[in-house]
Amino acid sequence: MSLQEVFQEISAADFFYRNRDIAGFTNPTRAIYSTIRELVENSLDAAEIREIPPDIYLRVSHESGPTDGPGIYRIHIEDNGIGIPHEIIPSAFGQVLFGSKYKLRQTRGTFGLGGKMAILYGQVTTHGQATIMSSTGPTKVHEYQLTIDIQKNKPVILKHKTHPNDNRWHGAVIDFLTEADYTRAMPKVLEYLQQTAIVAPYANITYVDPRGRLYRFERATTQMPKPPQETLPHPYGVDVETMKRLIELTKERTMLGFMKTHFHRVGRTIATGFLQQVGLPPKKNPKKLAPDEIVRVVNAMKSYKFLAPDANCLSPLGEELLEAGIKKELSPEFVSVYQRKPSAYSGFPFIVEVGIAYGGEIEPKGGIRLYRFANKIPLLFDEASDVSWKAVNTQMDWRHYKASPDMPIAVFVHICSTKVPYKTVGKEFIADRPDVEREVLNAVREVARRLSLFLSKKIHLAHDKHRLDVFQKYLPKIAGFSAKLAKKEKPPDVAPLLKSVLRYEKIEESEDDQDEDAE
Amino acid sequence: MSLQEVFQEISAADFFYRNRDIAGFTNPTRAIYSTIRELVENSLDAAEIREIPPDIYLRVSHESGPTDGPGIYRIHIEDNGIGIPHEIIPSAFGQVLFGSKYKLRQTRGTFGLGGKMAILYGQVTTHGQATIMSSTGPTKVHEYQLTIDIQKNKPVILKHKTHPNDNRWHGAVIDFLTEADYTRAMPKVLEYLQQTAIVAPYANITYVDPRGRLYRFERATTQMPKPPQETLPHPYGVDVETMKRLIELTKERTMLGFMKTHFHRVGRTIATGFLQQVGLPPKKNPKKLAPDEIVRVVNAMKSYKFLAPDANCLSPLGEELLEAGIKKELSPEFVSVYQRKPSAYSGFPFIVEVGIAYGGEIEPKGGIRLYRFANKIPLLFDEASDVSWKAVNTQMDWRHYKASPDMPIAVFVHICSTKVPYKTVGKEFIADRPDVEREVLNAVREVARRLSLFLSKKIHLAHDKHRLDVFQKYLPKIAGFSAKLAKKEKPPDVAPLLKSVLRYEKIEESEDDQDEDAE
Repeated sequence: MSLQEVFQEISAADFFYRNRDIAGFTNPTRAIYSTIRELVENSLDAAEIREIPPDIYLRVSHESGPTDGPGIYRIHIEDNGIGIPHEIIPSAFGQVLFGSKYKLRQTRGTFGLGGKMAILYGQVTTHGQATIMSSTGPTKVHEYQLTIDIQKNKPVILKHKTHPNDNRWHGAVIDFLTEADYTRAMPKVLEYLQQTAIVAPYANITYVDPRGRLYRFERATTQMPKPPQETLPHPYGVDVETMKRLIELTKERTMLGFMKTHFHRVGRTIATGFLQQVGLPPKKNPKKLAPDEIVRVVNAMKSYKFLAPDANCLSPLGEELLEAGIKKELSPEFVSVYQRKPSAYSGFPFIVEVGIAYGGEIEPKGGIRLYRFANKIPLLFDEASDVSWKAVNTQMDWRHYKASPDMPIAVFVHICSTKVPYKTVGKEFIADRPDVEREVLNAVREVARRLSLFLSKKIHLAHDKHRLDVFQKYLPKIAGFSAKLAKKEKPPDVAPLLKSVLRYEKIEESEDDQDEDAE
Repeated sequence: MSLQEVFQEISAADFFYRNRDIAGFTNPTRAIYSTIRELVENSLDAAEIREIPPDIYLRVSHESGPTDGPGIYRIHIEDNGIGIPHEIIPSAFGQVLFGSKYKLRQTRGTFGLGGKMAILYGQVTTHGQATIMSSTGPTKVHEYQLTIDIQKNKPVILKHKTHPNDNRWHGAVIDFLTEADYTRAMPKVLEYLQQTAIVAPYANITYVDPRGRLYRFERATTQMPKPPQETLPHPYGVDVETMKRLIELTKERTMLGFMKTHFHRVGRTIATGFLQQVGLPPKKNPKKLAPDEIVRVVNAMKSYKFLAPDANCLSPLGEELLEAGIKKELSPEFVSVYQRKPSAYSGFPFIVEVGIAYGGEIEPKGGIRLYRFANKIPLLFDEASDVSWKAVNTQMDWRHYKASPDMPIAVFVHICSTKVPYKTVGKEFIADRPDVEREVLNAVREVARRLSLFLSKKIHLAHDKHRLDVFQKYLPKIAGFSAKLAKKEKPPDVAPLLKSVLRYEKIEESEDDQDEDAE
């Protein structure tokens, strides 16, 4: 074997094809789950970016092969998102590491990889092509049939035609074959869709499964969260490479202008102070910085007191929508939600939102049920490695909050950020960055406190009811007996007396007050 | 913002630069650990491939900045591996997804990514270049200074010179600056090196830390495991994409020849039987297969009864070396090792080797201490998500084996395969593929059984000693008293009597026998 044969270059598509495990395409069970998830998330992103209440239609139908093991299935999804410009469609679906998600902006997708991996997996298991139809709203709809040349990481267009678009439809339709073990994946697929309905209560999701059963997740509101904004890099998150790229791109001629234009929350005063501390003249041309000066600036940025990142660019769900989502899907007896103030890790802003719920359709399962979300994505796998799991299961003493493992309690944690610190490309769990961990723990403590008030009332109410039952049973008898003794004709009315021993109102009435108190 | 700005293509280097978390370069603590690990592993691979007992010299020295937080450090590593052909050096170190590890062969590295990520991380944090010196043994040593153009994913050569190589040295020297929080990373770095010394007992590793302290892990043997071999793909692991590539490459003109030449353990008989079942004439030209025929062949491959993959291509450590490694680093009171027969998942062969040890330098820590290895790499992070952790901590009932959490017990699990099913690019934990899980559990059960024999003996020996102590105390007195009563001059000799009550020999002596019994 010659040396030339030993070393080789592979394309990005080839890398992810060879290592599809790390993108969540491990086997036919996991692959169909990841496929559905990536496609649904792209559709939600495409609608939310322009505040369109999402309408998603997903169909998985059995094509051939066994149904009690890996077989061939057809995936079909339609959305009402903004659509993809037609000249970009082939690359957007047929080229790995090409996309619109390489910005500092909160999106569900972060790697620009998921949708293509779904199509690529379909291709390598069925040798099929993908059909994509899309329009951004003008008079034509474009339809492409394509495959991915994995070794070159390029789309291969098999067919391209246009259709008239009389009603100015915008959105995308994707259709392809893939190998799947749907039967084994089903529970996770349905759980994923239900949790998505919780965290996107403004979306209509219609799902037709391989047996033709229709699952419909109706929107509970048309109110949409404010769409996420693109943001400038914060000085705390900048490294030498980013700095070099900014210097290359900039049209600013002075360091003062450069600092003000390219960094998040840096104005004249802060820029001047910083440049003074780092010993650079404000008029210096950024393109003339020597390599060691760049390093000095970047290092100084990490310790200078800049303003904390602004979370205005983020799109949290908001307490109202989170509560609506939980109520809609789980109808709990008690629910309380809480949004923490924005925080930041390494220059990336993030917001933690949590909810707690009791009863309703929550089943007691020997512990707190944890629902994890990141940028409005439900996370279903590798729970035990997640920062929220750590907080809920190892750092909280639930007895302190009167909660016990046999109670039907669920905790919801939603972390949104311009950069969620995932530990895998499969987006399954979030690293325990200290700042994130602290925020999650504080948030969970707050809602746990509210739950404990509810549980106290519930316990007292139960006592009260027992007490009242005793009084109700004996008071009329005592009254009657006393009346006879006193030779009165009519026994006294015991109702006012009974009412006076009531110590608590009905629990439902006090619940709202309590929520307001806690805010 | 125009649409052209919204969509963009990024290079593979750029992708991993933006998502360095997923490759184990999360922060300055984790990054220095990953840097050391990736470099040491590349060096070990480069020596083992030609059965050279590795000699590795690693130095981390503090350059500037604080030492109680992130500062700038110099990394310097030298090995005696086979070296890198000089024309390939720039790409091998300056281009992501270029390398020699994209073969079906058991190597520590699997992604062709680690070494470059280490250099890339150094570059983005310090703006420095990397210096690489290497020779494959001829009369010249080549020295390169280079940086990575991240946006283009290409090396930028700053300097290239040659030195005479009079003593025909082969190996590589790498030197660069990087940001690191060494103080916080230190425990994991030392643990990593010690565990590497366990699993590569034939390597000399010298490490000089930033304070100038020298750690020397001496080899315990010069016996080397047989180097791993490249192997053909097994029909069970072939998908449509692999099949297409093989058809494109092949020089065979018939399906029979094609099957025999390109697949693992497929001979004439099996190939003929398979082609008959799938309904293709043996003389059919593979290049003339229609797309749906390719799909049919690939699907049929999954269910046909082929021979199981042959593990000859693998390079397990072997029981002898594993035992030597454990003894060398932990000096346990008891050790037993066990290698399972080769097995396979999805067409990839793998072998599980386990060890169990008691006492010595193993500290009791309220549970079994687990050492995890994959292709001779120690795995130190995310233990709870690993298949071995699951087997040892949730599937084994250790009480059944007389083991208790307060005992100084360590379990060692080594999985080697042409494709280790890692769940992250950071190579931290192994997925619980059912076949892998079963092999690990069976292997651990076997050594646990041997441990329980040792523990039984240990308990009996303790009883025995107690019993003997009692006899030793009273027998001479009884003998003396009896002698007096019988008016004998000299009491009888009790030594033979004492010996006869001994039920067990000294435990050290029986240990070896027991090991042989179990094999």
